[in-house]
Amino acid sequence: MKSQLRKYLERHITLSEDEFEAFYACFEQNTYQKKDFLLKEGETCRHKHFILKGLVRSFYIDEKGTEKITQFAIENWWVTNTESFALQKPSNIDIQAVEETTTLSINKVEFEKSLSQIPQLERFFRIVAENMVIAIQRRYGFYMKMNSKIRYEHFVEWIPDFAQRVPLYMIASYLDITPEYLSQLRKG
Amino acid sequence: MKSQLRKYLERHITLSEDEFEAFYACFEQNTYQKKDFLLKEGETCRHKHFILKGLVRSFYIDEKGTEKITQFAIENWWVTNTESFALQKPSNIDIQAVEETTTLSINKVEFEKSLSQIPQLERFFRIVAENMVIAIQRRYGFYMKMNSKIRYEHFVEWIPDFAQRVPLYMIASYLDITPEYLSQLRKG
Repeated sequence: MKSQLRKYLERHITLSEDEFEAFYACFEQNTYQKKDFLLKEGETCRHKHFILKGLVRSFYIDEKGTEKITQFAIENWWVTNTESFALQKPSNIDIQAVEETTTLSINKVEFEKSLSQIPQLERFFRIVAENMVIAIQRRYGFYMKMNSKIRYEHFVEWIPDFAQRVPLYMIASYLDITPEYLSQLRKG
Repeated sequence: MKSQLRKYLERHITLSEDEFEAFYACFEQNTYQKKDFLLKEGETCRHKHFILKGLVRSFYIDEKGTEKITQFAIENWWVTNTESFALQKPSNIDIQAVEETTTLSINKVEFEKSLSQIPQLERFFRIVAENMVIAIQRRYGFYMKMNSKIRYEHFVEWIPDFAQRVPLYMIASYLDITPEYLSQLRKG
């Protein structure tokens, strides 16, 4: 568990043994059962979660009562509601486990403290935030300019793990197409 | 111009005189006429632009040939294509001046150099990237769950400057509603 976080950090920064231990001590490990919520709409997001194992989704309910999935996250991804966490205001989305999920979670106070004590973490979380911008802009913006078929093909190619692990109706929600049409696409 | 950038940086970090001067020396000042492009689809994004004065939009052309505006940016905002800039790959979007626009622009090499020489800039750009996540998630995700009327009211309330400075058809594109319906909404 420790080594998984360390390995991930070392993709972008190098911490001394003491720095890593101090940072690691700020996390608590949590396990969520399938369908458990990491965050509910209306609650303030108190944590950033690093996923050790499992799969979660972020979603909201639109005005017609339909679930709209905005993000999936798997092993070695960070998940939070950035606005709710940064501004400590109520969340507009839910974050829910799709599989049994184990996280290392850091709260707002420990997060801010770590960043001021270990400046290299600023670099790390700058890159994490930029990767999040990239992921969201791929998801929206120009991703949606493709037709449904190409969108599905890109999804499978870009993140093949998801297509195997996520129920069909959730992929359809994420890609903003009907489950029926997605089923046709999968049959080829 | 110098003081405007400094004032903006000091919202989040404190640099010494020498640090600020070294960072400022990495920028060049550019002026774009209305309709000039800061970045064209297919080009690699080489710069981050800090807007001193003016207004730009980011957009793409969808499969039906319609312009879809993904972002507006005004004075004291940063604009770039994050994916194209970070990965130095061709951009999927255009960035174009809506008004005559003056920027302070920093290229990729100077940007990386500054961040390694002045670690506090990592904190600054971490916060800039998180604010971008927040802005994009407001724009998509849960923003779109509101109906068109409430979406327009939020837009006017949240960024009142834009509603005055941006042509109606661009606001409609950004809010993903028809110009005709937007016109009705404005009449109340």
